[in-house]
Amino acid sequence: MQPYVVVMAGGSGTRFWPASRRGRPKQYLPIARGKVLLRETIDRLGGWVPWERVLVVSAQSQRELVRACLPELPPANLLAEPAARNTAPAVAWAAFEIARRDPTAGMVVLAADHVIEPPDAFRRSLQAGLAEAETSGALITFGIRPTHPATGYGYIEVGSRVAERGGIPVHAVARFVEKPDRARAEQFLSSGRFLWNAGIFAWRADAILAAFRAHLPVVLAGLERVRSGAELDALWPTLPSVPVDTAILERASNVRTLPIDYAWNDVGSWSALPEIATPDAQGNYAFLSGGARLIAHDASGCVAYGEGEGLLALVGVKDLVVVRAGNALLVCPRERAQDVKKIVEALERDGAREFL
Amino acid sequence: MQPYVVVMAGGSGTRFWPASRRGRPKQYLPIARGKVLLRETIDRLGGWVPWERVLVVSAQSQRELVRACLPELPPANLLAEPAARNTAPAVAWAAFEIARRDPTAGMVVLAADHVIEPPDAFRRSLQAGLAEAETSGALITFGIRPTHPATGYGYIEVGSRVAERGGIPVHAVARFVEKPDRARAEQFLSSGRFLWNAGIFAWRADAILAAFRAHLPVVLAGLERVRSGAELDALWPTLPSVPVDTAILERASNVRTLPIDYAWNDVGSWSALPEIATPDAQGNYAFLSGGARLIAHDASGCVAYGEGEGLLALVGVKDLVVVRAGNALLVCPRERAQDVKKIVEALERDGAREFL
Repeated sequence: MQPYVVVMAGGSGTRFWPASRRGRPKQYLPIARGKVLLRETIDRLGGWVPWERVLVVSAQSQRELVRACLPELPPANLLAEPAARNTAPAVAWAAFEIARRDPTAGMVVLAADHVIEPPDAFRRSLQAGLAEAETSGALITFGIRPTHPATGYGYIEVGSRVAERGGIPVHAVARFVEKPDRARAEQFLSSGRFLWNAGIFAWRADAILAAFRAHLPVVLAGLERVRSGAELDALWPTLPSVPVDTAILERASNVRTLPIDYAWNDVGSWSALPEIATPDAQGNYAFLSGGARLIAHDASGCVAYGEGEGLLALVGVKDLVVVRAGNALLVCPRERAQDVKKIVEALERDGAREFL
Repeated sequence: MQPYVVVMAGGSGTRFWPASRRGRPKQYLPIARGKVLLRETIDRLGGWVPWERVLVVSAQSQRELVRACLPELPPANLLAEPAARNTAPAVAWAAFEIARRDPTAGMVVLAADHVIEPPDAFRRSLQAGLAEAETSGALITFGIRPTHPATGYGYIEVGSRVAERGGIPVHAVARFVEKPDRARAEQFLSSGRFLWNAGIFAWRADAILAAFRAHLPVVLAGLERVRSGAELDALWPTLPSVPVDTAILERASNVRTLPIDYAWNDVGSWSALPEIATPDAQGNYAFLSGGARLIAHDASGCVAYGEGEGLLALVGVKDLVVVRAGNALLVCPRERAQDVKKIVEALERDGAREFL
């Protein structure tokens, strides 16, 4: 039985402004070995799943971007949401579509904007989780082994070991924990019993649909009305905007987890780019596409992002983020990258749509 | 008798890269109250001299730039050099042309790329120097009162006071001194007897031509051959490439000097821009043209130069030079601005003409 892969590519965000804009979120940035994250998300699978079994859930406004990045994707496999409703409706839609084709098919759900290395280990984890899901009917959430006391992620407390698949342990989930404060995050890290909840899942289509039926039936009812002829554009905005984690997984009893204990990065901001790249000879991290060039004199530790024909010249600076993208440039210390949102907020206040 | 004004606008240089390029040197940058330096050089005169009596000496390659900046300039008043030969041939050409129209006319010679404030004081100084030159036949070099022990300028040692014009003392020149080392520059500054030699002059056309005849006759001979039909393009490169200061003024006996003891700035590099501008509310120095915009969050002391539609966003940075011009951007600490030439040199080595 061949599985399906569902890529969640509807996200939006401002943390990579000015490279990411309203119409072009992070998953379309060429920061993963020169490829856009969405493309790399699928290439990472190494052809494990054929394009006919790849589904991408994205926003209607991003339809052309998806097509440009994934020309191989069959048009029917692009599920374009009329409005952002968080992950639960998107997952339900994908499962609903897969079940229509193959009711008991396994499916893995991936985020379009993570970097995970090495790809073959990741594939083995997905296959192990899928084997567990297909056999047991469990809902699998992959958990990232924490590397630091992060306060920006939800955590999974690992329960008893229930199986092993391909040498990878499968555990029950003791509980889900919302984003903790720093002290609790440190406890979680030192306990060794917690994983980050990263939005990577595996399950059978019938199993996740059963869970929706039990815990969020309104979404399935909506999808059935669309199948019966209701307008997707009218119906979709009426669905609850909730994450699949809290709406389904935290309520379901048959949830299990497998650890991902190799390099995972959700590339949360400009300051994360050095974590997913190799520095050049001068110690700068260059992300250049479309003819962009970098020249540095006595500059190091900088993240230099350039798109399109043009030159970034750095002289005597250290640990800066320097971005040249479209009609804007950004200069910011690496450790202040989270403040890029202040610029976006100011532009929104000013109504400066041409830069958003 | 109305004077002529000659603006020396043939300079080239790399210190304002990437705003200044091979075909567009500093005098064409819009950094003087939003105007290009060349334009401001003439506007600073406040209409004192009509356009028919303004001559601009520039390079043939800059002809269109001059026309764009100075549409009022009569075409015959643009003296376009086929090659750069330093200032002596340029001054001789202007004097030769003025003498043809009015042999004993007074003329002032200005550099196209200085900022001088306030304009009315400057005009009064020019008028005083010109009055002295017209009456006595002397060659007047205006000297800038030093504000710091600069090692980048030549100095004039002031001799005895010989006259006063419009309340401004006129002195003999004791001697010219080439760029001194730091220790000598400090002596010069503390002595109070030295002025910077800044390339601002006043004289009668016949007086400077007589000085050329005495000290650099080959240039006048060349100009006469052109008048008799020789090709300017062929002749000009054969003239000696020497500054008028060393070739003429240091050898002439009738040289006098008037002090300019108000704000003068030759805008030598990006780091000089704060000296000629007012900081904005956050303490940044914005030089924006053609629709460029600046937005800063917790950034101060930065020189932000932008040309054309586009946004410069600065977050959490201090005392940087950030330039967005054409197909390049530069990020550099203010105190490292002199190292911009390292970038230009590297681009020249690489043959990257598109950025030069």
